[in-house]
Amino acid sequence: MAEPYDCIIIGGGPAGLGAALYASRDRFKTLVLEKFYPGGQINTTDRIENYPAFDKISGPDLIEKMVNQATQFDAEIKTSTEVIGLKSHDNGMLQVDTEDEMFTARAVILAPGSAYRNLDVPGEEEFRNAGAGVSYCGTCDAPFFKDRKVVTVGGGNTAVEDTLHLTKFASEVVMVHRRQEFRAARVLVEELMAKVNEANSNLNLQLDSVVTAIEGQGKVERAIVKNVKTDQETTIDCDGVFVFVGMVPNTEFVKGFVDLSEHGYIKCDPAYLRTKVPGVFVAGDCRVGAAMQLVTAVADGVNAVMWMKQYFRDPSWWNEGIKDELAPGGW
Amino acid sequence: MAEPYDCIIIGGGPAGLGAALYASRDRFKTLVLEKFYPGGQINTTDRIENYPAFDKISGPDLIEKMVNQATQFDAEIKTSTEVIGLKSHDNGMLQVDTEDEMFTARAVILAPGSAYRNLDVPGEEEFRNAGAGVSYCGTCDAPFFKDRKVVTVGGGNTAVEDTLHLTKFASEVVMVHRRQEFRAARVLVEELMAKVNEANSNLNLQLDSVVTAIEGQGKVERAIVKNVKTDQETTIDCDGVFVFVGMVPNTEFVKGFVDLSEHGYIKCDPAYLRTKVPGVFVAGDCRVGAAMQLVTAVADGVNAVMWMKQYFRDPSWWNEGIKDELAPGGW
Repeated sequence: MAEPYDCIIIGGGPAGLGAALYASRDRFKTLVLEKFYPGGQINTTDRIENYPAFDKISGPDLIEKMVNQATQFDAEIKTSTEVIGLKSHDNGMLQVDTEDEMFTARAVILAPGSAYRNLDVPGEEEFRNAGAGVSYCGTCDAPFFKDRKVVTVGGGNTAVEDTLHLTKFASEVVMVHRRQEFRAARVLVEELMAKVNEANSNLNLQLDSVVTAIEGQGKVERAIVKNVKTDQETTIDCDGVFVFVGMVPNTEFVKGFVDLSEHGYIKCDPAYLRTKVPGVFVAGDCRVGAAMQLVTAVADGVNAVMWMKQYFRDPSWWNEGIKDELAPGGW
Repeated sequence: MAEPYDCIIIGGGPAGLGAALYASRDRFKTLVLEKFYPGGQINTTDRIENYPAFDKISGPDLIEKMVNQATQFDAEIKTSTEVIGLKSHDNGMLQVDTEDEMFTARAVILAPGSAYRNLDVPGEEEFRNAGAGVSYCGTCDAPFFKDRKVVTVGGGNTAVEDTLHLTKFASEVVMVHRRQEFRAARVLVEELMAKVNEANSNLNLQLDSVVTAIEGQGKVERAIVKNVKTDQETTIDCDGVFVFVGMVPNTEFVKGFVDLSEHGYIKCDPAYLRTKVPGVFVAGDCRVGAAMQLVTAVADGVNAVMWMKQYFRDPSWWNEGIKDELAPGGW
């Protein structure tokens, strides 16, 4: 068994790396356990314009900076390491099990992030696994659809951004959205509409509509689309379907250890990011009430560490309410 | 009277600029009212190493980037504009009064930040106002004390950082701290101790001690220091006293409009940053429970805007509890 850590962070995305920077800079023995490689979902973003003070940066570049910053203060990052279970011992120590190893720590910060939500329609899983035309990341896969026709699904920020990105590659893009209105930021919706209204635009909208099936022989050849108001079904011939319908939290592995909401988000006290288990904090998109933005995820990680220090100073604080004197930056 | 805004942000520091970026990027008509010039306290910091993804940057450089980023999306920033009062009208519109003008908006984000805390000892005010040896900002004023002797007071991050900075200029630094232990991050305390233990170090600690008076003829000539355990008083001859004992929130102007805690922090629902007045949010160091870090202040501003959008979609949400479906980044 490895030597105990002060702090184990589960997840090496923006929330986990924000936590790692602060924990290691404070000289806490810090371990980040990352299922794949650092960055998480943000790695699939090519153009970030809303991380304050960065005019424009790609996801991978931003993550590289964050990793370098945290590791220079000796945070340890283990990649390709999946956590399969957690336990809280009577002495307050926390145990984190991976497939090959067992770690212990005084505090754990859960920052597993979230994953792409599926449409759950026939053909989706089959063509996704085969790499045969179903994708969840426009930034990643757009170049594969040069001069081809694609269908995109969704109405949020990512849906609009990635649809616009795809118009630069595909010969034609049909955006299918189940409502008339878009959840995306207005500046993005304006950009979308400007594109739709261009002369000879290669972008068309199919509103009040959902994709009910993805069909083809060995690869995507068409999407079946249903109008939710008229129930009328149409077929769109295409070479690919991009699914942009949001995220689901990666919280399966903590089920039964901490409390989850109906939709699988980790329940917490939002003032302090405490779960129901003493010493176990939560940060980022996986928690109830998260704003799902890059900088808010990073700040969640930082907040979790600030409150972890409060917990280390006084473990009985765990069950106390909010007090402004606790503000960790105070005198 | 000016045309109504969607969003008025009071305070142009990191929290206010984070909010301004998100509000303007979402095409909300956005006004930032700043008492002095953008940046607030962070302008007095020369070396920031804990804003994730920036290895090292100065406060003024970071603020310049944030201002440029927000104004490129048309956020309006009025400097040298002090807010003197707020009102909520029956129709839900909010009124913001400055000395010269009156503005209205659908939502207000309070982000006034905080100011230096005083020692409240004889001589402090007199010498401060005269620019005669009392300072609250090592980064700003250290060069004025080249080859001179100074006393610093405090034990937090800023106290340690700025004391170390001063040792590069002053011939001798005496750091007075009322406890044995430091609140500062361990990495900083280690750096401090290494400096103290250098051969012929120009840094000495006077622990368990407080400054009780600052004396001199027209300028600082000595500090009177009392040991809190023995009550013994000593005199330290010096040319300057640097006071690093924390911050107080700049919330005098909202007293009676929103609720304040005993120490003057704005009370809010930390999940959504809502105050008791519908449409009035709070962000940054001025609120109860703030972690008092740069990135957490920025994220507060972003969070306030995300929840402001929820309020605009459904004003009745103001009095509802937390629901994970509300997560604004959801589908």
